[in-house]
Amino acid sequence: MEESTRRPTKKKVVAVVGGGLVGALNACFFAKRGFNVEVYEIREDIRQAKVVKGRSINLALSHRGRQALKHVGMEEKIVSQGIPMHARMIHSLKGKQSPIPYGKKDQYILSVDRANLNKELLTAVEAFPNTKLNFDHKLQGWSAETGLMTFVRSDGSKEQINADLIVGCDGAFSALRKQFLRRSRFNYSQTYIPHGYMELTIPPLNGEFAMKPNYLHIWPRNTFMMIALPNMDKTFTCTLFMPFEDFEKITTGDEVITFFQKYFPDAIPLIGADTLKRDYFRLPAQAMVSVKCSSYHIGDKCVLMGDAAHAVVPFYGQGMNAGFEDCIVFDEIMELFNEDFSAVLPEYTRVRVPDDHAIADLAMYNYVEMRAHVNSKWFLFRKHVDNILHFLLPQTIIPLYTMVTFTRTRYHEAVERWHWQNKVINRGLFFCAAGAFFGSSYLLIKNPPDIDKLVVPAEKMWNRLVALRTS
Amino acid sequence: MEESTRRPTKKKVVAVVGGGLVGALNACFFAKRGFNVEVYEIREDIRQAKVVKGRSINLALSHRGRQALKHVGMEEKIVSQGIPMHARMIHSLKGKQSPIPYGKKDQYILSVDRANLNKELLTAVEAFPNTKLNFDHKLQGWSAETGLMTFVRSDGSKEQINADLIVGCDGAFSALRKQFLRRSRFNYSQTYIPHGYMELTIPPLNGEFAMKPNYLHIWPRNTFMMIALPNMDKTFTCTLFMPFEDFEKITTGDEVITFFQKYFPDAIPLIGADTLKRDYFRLPAQAMVSVKCSSYHIGDKCVLMGDAAHAVVPFYGQGMNAGFEDCIVFDEIMELFNEDFSAVLPEYTRVRVPDDHAIADLAMYNYVEMRAHVNSKWFLFRKHVDNILHFLLPQTIIPLYTMVTFTRTRYHEAVERWHWQNKVINRGLFFCAAGAFFGSSYLLIKNPPDIDKLVVPAEKMWNRLVALRTS
Repeated sequence: MEESTRRPTKKKVVAVVGGGLVGALNACFFAKRGFNVEVYEIREDIRQAKVVKGRSINLALSHRGRQALKHVGMEEKIVSQGIPMHARMIHSLKGKQSPIPYGKKDQYILSVDRANLNKELLTAVEAFPNTKLNFDHKLQGWSAETGLMTFVRSDGSKEQINADLIVGCDGAFSALRKQFLRRSRFNYSQTYIPHGYMELTIPPLNGEFAMKPNYLHIWPRNTFMMIALPNMDKTFTCTLFMPFEDFEKITTGDEVITFFQKYFPDAIPLIGADTLKRDYFRLPAQAMVSVKCSSYHIGDKCVLMGDAAHAVVPFYGQGMNAGFEDCIVFDEIMELFNEDFSAVLPEYTRVRVPDDHAIADLAMYNYVEMRAHVNSKWFLFRKHVDNILHFLLPQTIIPLYTMVTFTRTRYHEAVERWHWQNKVINRGLFFCAAGAFFGSSYLLIKNPPDIDKLVVPAEKMWNRLVALRTS
Repeated sequence: MEESTRRPTKKKVVAVVGGGLVGALNACFFAKRGFNVEVYEIREDIRQAKVVKGRSINLALSHRGRQALKHVGMEEKIVSQGIPMHARMIHSLKGKQSPIPYGKKDQYILSVDRANLNKELLTAVEAFPNTKLNFDHKLQGWSAETGLMTFVRSDGSKEQINADLIVGCDGAFSALRKQFLRRSRFNYSQTYIPHGYMELTIPPLNGEFAMKPNYLHIWPRNTFMMIALPNMDKTFTCTLFMPFEDFEKITTGDEVITFFQKYFPDAIPLIGADTLKRDYFRLPAQAMVSVKCSSYHIGDKCVLMGDAAHAVVPFYGQGMNAGFEDCIVFDEIMELFNEDFSAVLPEYTRVRVPDDHAIADLAMYNYVEMRAHVNSKWFLFRKHVDNILHFLLPQTIIPLYTMVTFTRTRYHEAVERWHWQNKVINRGLFFCAAGAFFGSSYLLIKNPPDIDKLVVPAEKMWNRLVALRTS
């Protein structure tokens, strides 16, 4: 009880479980509203830790995440520590590089360092007078009825605290969520994709970036792919995404090199053959999970946010951004319902579940698109058509990627709009093609050309069409 | 350790967790193979219990379930204790009853009593010399590495046993499955449907069944429905399926009567107005969950079967039948792989997961079909077409319901075949319609009729078509 009664203010106690990205940011949001915020993190303070264990090294920060950071006055600082990426850079098998912009010229996503961002956010939490960070606190049990929580520390000692609101930001494998699973009518799914991921590093070359830095580099190879994001220290972090059984087929350093020579030949000199041989076996490939659930709350006492509510696969670069946007959405609803938890929590579930499910599905969809479709000429053609239409009709046709990445259009509305746009555009293309066919037929009938002169160009055009469909 | 070393035979120890329908039947399968079988059931022996808590009262036994019972010599006995149902009996709003047969004349499903079937199966387990039933044993923990299991009894005492194989048949809320959830790359989903169910009873009328007994009675009302299955004691058990919020709208006895007068008027005298007023509030509506997961096994030590692996919603009448078929499939694989658990378990997962997922999806599909589509004339027309085609081409066109209910066609193959058949039949119907149109047009052109005579019949036909599409 000591914890909850320490500050005899009128404001309620909000316990944030998890001091990762979403937990720390959320603590700032609640602190800004004047709540007494206690953050409970299972690990040690990463600002003091020598080795930071955790997930992937860098992340793509985009509009939704930035808006949330802006709310707590951190946008500028974090943006200054990130590297803008204006386009994907597609690496062909032959090493040819072709950029595909993310949006308009001034639109970009930012490569940011996960550990650094987390440290900055924890420091921001501490800057509030009404917050406390509690590290080395493992959630052992809690009651949805009373809000009483029990934590255990690594020395075995226990601590009990009472919170008015428990906010679960403890990630994809949330300890808090376990209790949700035991309750009736809680829908839940966890889906592991057949791919794993492995991180490799491209060191600087003569003190400079070894590739163009302002791009998200992609080596799409249909059933698998590699990507690389730039870091502030002029390295790139490569992530190889591949089915687990393919990872397991490679068992020696020489097999690694043979594999890279076949599929990523231009990456070998960048990573370094010897480093590659060694680093490939440093850690086993890691699994990726997509988690969906509903509802996000129990009564007026507990709510799940971030990965604890909706872990997504990383292929749309929206995991952190969606989690950060959770904080804004919750805050907006708090404003609307005058901080009455009994009204805010159900409304949050009602509003947010369809959006989170939509981004989870989109990320799964992009899991195929990123490694396979970007290789197709039809995909590139459609990207061009979308961009031209967006330029001509900026309010009517907005590419899906733009809506997701550079606006706060609700995810599920972005998906609905995307389906509608696709229908309209595909129909338009069909009518254009039909018009071209009948128009040229009419001209041909009016001015019949020398048939013999047509055979060669017709054959060429046919071959090109065949190549387009099969590429 | 006492338990596992008690019988110094060479045969391995199989621990079956759960003494419900699938657990008890499975114990017979393993006992028949000569294993030392220990069944652990959390409840008391239901054969001694005064009040049997549990789920729905009666179940529909069909071919797959019967085949499994046959394997352990119990088919005849159980069939003799069930009531054949040859057809659905659709009750219209006006009380009109129309039968829709399940298959051919000699094909039927059986209404069986869950508690009685469970008791018979437990007695069958005990008839083997190499089995032991352990009631009042709650699984507290277990190790997938060593097979060591800890049980706790209601007096607080604990018991540890070592099993060579742990078979989880402990139902939709399986305690054993919890450990699966903690392992990486375990896919899992639990989905509650928005409907709940409530059971009511139609007593005998003058010592006889109050409705025709050899039918599954259905009152389909689009967004909700009621069904009734006959019991050996000449009662019917009615089950009302309805969205929870609709259940909650009815708060007084008079509202129950008003609701039934509007939607199930013919059921009021059968149940009795006073009983209805009382029984509606006896228990709250119960939830229904659909559970899918994979894999079903961990190493060579543990496997999930029955509802623990694949709880389905009850609308295809296949929950128990699928669980019983699990036992046959596992037994067939045991035969194929010479009882080598390290080969049998992965193969069981490989073979059975797609079939269980298919029946889970089908049950969800029928959740709509049973309460809404059976009201549509198009549905009935297609049922007739399917049956006629099945009569003409018995090997080529087999109705889905027949494949699922009266054969052991693998569930996922039944679904694939169904999709193919639908394509073929719908195309056939289209060509028939087109042929009829052009044929009649040709005849009309050759022998132009008096136009005035055509107006009235054309209008009639049009109205009928409109009614068909909107019904």
